Amino acid sequence: MNKKGLLYEGKAKKIFETDHQDVFWIEYKDDATAFNGEKKDKITGKSRLNNLITSKIFEVLKKEGINNHFIEKLSDTEQLVQKVTIVPLEVVVRNVTAGSLSKRLGMEEGIQLEAPVIEFYYKDDDLGDPLINEDHIRLLNIATPEQLQTMRSIALKVNQFLIQLFQDVNVRLVDFKLEFGVTGNGEILLADEISPDTCRLWDIHTNQKFDKDLFRRNIGSLTEGYEEILTRLGGSSS
Amino acid sequence: MNKKGLLYEGKAKKIFETDHQDVFWIEYKDDATAFNGEKKDKITGKSRLNNLITSKIFEVLKKEGINNHFIEKLSDTEQLVQKVTIVPLEVVVRNVTAGSLSKRLGMEEGIQLEAPVIEFYYKDDDLGDPLINEDHIRLLNIATPEQLQTMRSIALKVNQFLIQLFQDVNVRLVDFKLEFGVTGNGEILLADEISPDTCRLWDIHTNQKFDKDLFRRNIGSLTEGYEEILTRLGGSSS
Repeated sequence: MNKKGLLYEGKAKKIFETDHQDVFWIEYKDDATAFNGEKKDKITGKSRLNNLITSKIFEVLKKEGINNHFIEKLSDTEQLVQKVTIVPLEVVVRNVTAGSLSKRLGMEEGIQLEAPVIEFYYKDDDLGDPLINEDHIRLLNIATPEQLQTMRSIALKVNQFLIQLFQDVNVRLVDFKLEFGVTGNGEILLADEISPDTCRLWDIHTNQKFDKDLFRRNIGSLTEGYEEILTRLGGSSS
Repeated sequence: MNKKGLLYEGKAKKIFETDHQDVFWIEYKDDATAFNGEKKDKITGKSRLNNLITSKIFEVLKKEGINNHFIEKLSDTEQLVQKVTIVPLEVVVRNVTAGSLSKRLGMEEGIQLEAPVIEFYYKDDDLGDPLINEDHIRLLNIATPEQLQTMRSIALKVNQFLIQLFQDVNVRLVDFKLEFGVTGNGEILLADEISPDTCRLWDIHTNQKFDKDLFRRNIGSLTEGYEEILTRLGGSSS
């Protein structure tokens, strides 16, 4: 497999075409951004941590029957994935109040929810990735009701699985964001990444944060937090 | 029926108890507010216009089989309504892009929607009445899924009816906000008001605005716009 032209550069990764038409080559970046790009920094080692953690999680999800775009890890900062067209939705699953949910509903952080809450955000930087509902999704022609139901159902399955995966290593899965793509066959496929950039992960006993809130809120070393997650999940050797 | 103590004073009306335990006495106010109370003014005559227009619309809705809290008009600025406990939701129905929908989704105003869009906002001034989804409504224990379905269904019926009512007098129903209450029997009942304070109403030919955007955007006389709606609906003599 050979890397070809840069197709897209996002905030946290670059996506290259390859000589295989159904495969993308992803290179994680050391850039950290928050608040729709208003806060920015370069953090050496972040690309390796996110690539290794995402690779590990997507691999395990695949083994558990939750299909996704991941093909293989190429290096500490690169991976191959199946080509999809990303659906412009951030699908957020929440198990514990935090962040924008707490702000929106006026609830303090850290309250365990009786059932998961799912939210859809419209991926549009100019609009600030607003919360939208299913009528908006229909209006914007982002996804069919069936595709939306598929995304919701996969998101809940991923949640069930990740809650257990993290609980086994004494980490509380507070919330996370998924993105989906549509394959050439028109199928919805789990895509993007699952990493401390896209999850809130707290120590189950101390509530210590191991996720991007370290950077967003300037409350500790991002790489130390992410490294702790990688280590608890079995380290980089896996 | 005798008016008793003031139960609640909102931005646009006062609600009094009466000597009948199931009946409230509503007095419309001449206050105009917008942007969650940031913009305020006193506009003589507004109370009469909203009371007369709401009374007229609720009366006609009742005749059409869409039950609601309205009992009778008492005076130019007062009406009797059935006592309900207001559900803290603003149920917004949209037929044409405008206002916060245009801002949220980055769409220009005035685009006719293929199907109505329904939105739920959490009535909470401190939080700025945020948009919420059905998972949030469940989390906040605002309404059961069945109650929510009932509100959605009534909202769509009201929409169908009002589109026609206004079209017959050359007015385009762009969007509107409903509020619902729960009766002593636990039933969902359409409540609050339906007036140019809670609807966007444009002339069908010229797009001239006859609603609260006149005040919000300082683009004309609020009372002239509201009076035009009252006149087109058959005037105050009805």
